Amino acid sequence: MEKRNKVFIATSLDGYIADKDGGLDWLFSIPNPDQVDMGYESFMSEVDAIVMGRVTFETVCGFDCPWPYTKPVFILSASLESIPEEFTGKAELVKGTIPKIVEQLNWRGYHRLYIDGGNTIQNFLKEDLIDDLIITTIPVLLGGGYTLFGDLVQPLDFEYVSSKVYLDKVPQIRYKRKRD
Amino acid sequence: MEKRNKVFIATSLDGYIADKDGGLDWLFSIPNPDQVDMGYESFMSEVDAIVMGRVTFETVCGFDCPWPYTKPVFILSASLESIPEEFTGKAELVKGTIPKIVEQLNWRGYHRLYIDGGNTIQNFLKEDLIDDLIITTIPVLLGGGYTLFGDLVQPLDFEYVSSKVYLDKVPQIRYKRKRD
Repeated sequence: MEKRNKVFIATSLDGYIADKDGGLDWLFSIPNPDQVDMGYESFMSEVDAIVMGRVTFETVCGFDCPWPYTKPVFILSASLESIPEEFTGKAELVKGTIPKIVEQLNWRGYHRLYIDGGNTIQNFLKEDLIDDLIITTIPVLLGGGYTLFGDLVQPLDFEYVSSKVYLDKVPQIRYKRKRD
Repeated sequence: MEKRNKVFIATSLDGYIADKDGGLDWLFSIPNPDQVDMGYESFMSEVDAIVMGRVTFETVCGFDCPWPYTKPVFILSASLESIPEEFTGKAELVKGTIPKIVEQLNWRGYHRLYIDGGNTIQNFLKEDLIDDLIITTIPVLLGGGYTLFGDLVQPLDFEYVSSKVYLDKVPQIRYKRKRD
């Protein structure tokens, strides 16, 4: 099966994934009475496992809801020594360089990876290891915060694939890496 | 006539309007043999005049082509003392605060203004004086450069209006300011 690393994330119109205080309230600023999932379940069916950093993991652990993932979750962290016991069997700690970790996960049969969390996405992009970007734009200018994208040594060309608009208010665009 | 200040601009996927060296080559990276204008002429028919800063003015003056505008152009600059003679009758220098300049231009009958150039757009947004944002996304991660959006004291809510895709490759989304 083709190996692909995928990003599925929402940003503000000015490219932030969290506001100046790290807050995410603005993500829920569009009225969504029927809880339209904006393609999340469909996207999850495209992946075999989730890879995220410690910060995202701890954010998810802090949500007041049951563990939200039905696929294996791998936590990239240099500082964490182990996963809290209550998450055993749900999340697994992985260590090493990003290319090595991807190689190991691929070898274990996880070919389509959902890469999540700002730092982790930026680190994957630095290694040119992102193949699909699905970006949902919440139409607000936050004017500061944590950016989705970071510095790169070389530009990376992507290609437009498709777009949708959810709730008549929230555009989502899918891009794929254009490799010559 | 309703007064509206409008932005029509292309950015990279990571939100830059010029690369690290100020370059714009990436804007022309999508093959466009028929010179599709990506909505530019249609947009120009929506405005009465153009407002830009000195940097954008000097960039346009440096293009190897005839003066591209058929509508009055107003140059915002604290440092310029006059417009070079060859641009007399094409561009006019305006001075003062942004709200005052808009008021004057509106009073002179220019109600729908095309606000152009990174600094000028950021300064208008700081005054909450942008009503329409039409953003064309070139699917490349530049990894650094001059950003379209800057810091704001308060978030600004916008609303999705419509979207198009040019050349099957270049998405363009129109937003309008949502004022309660």
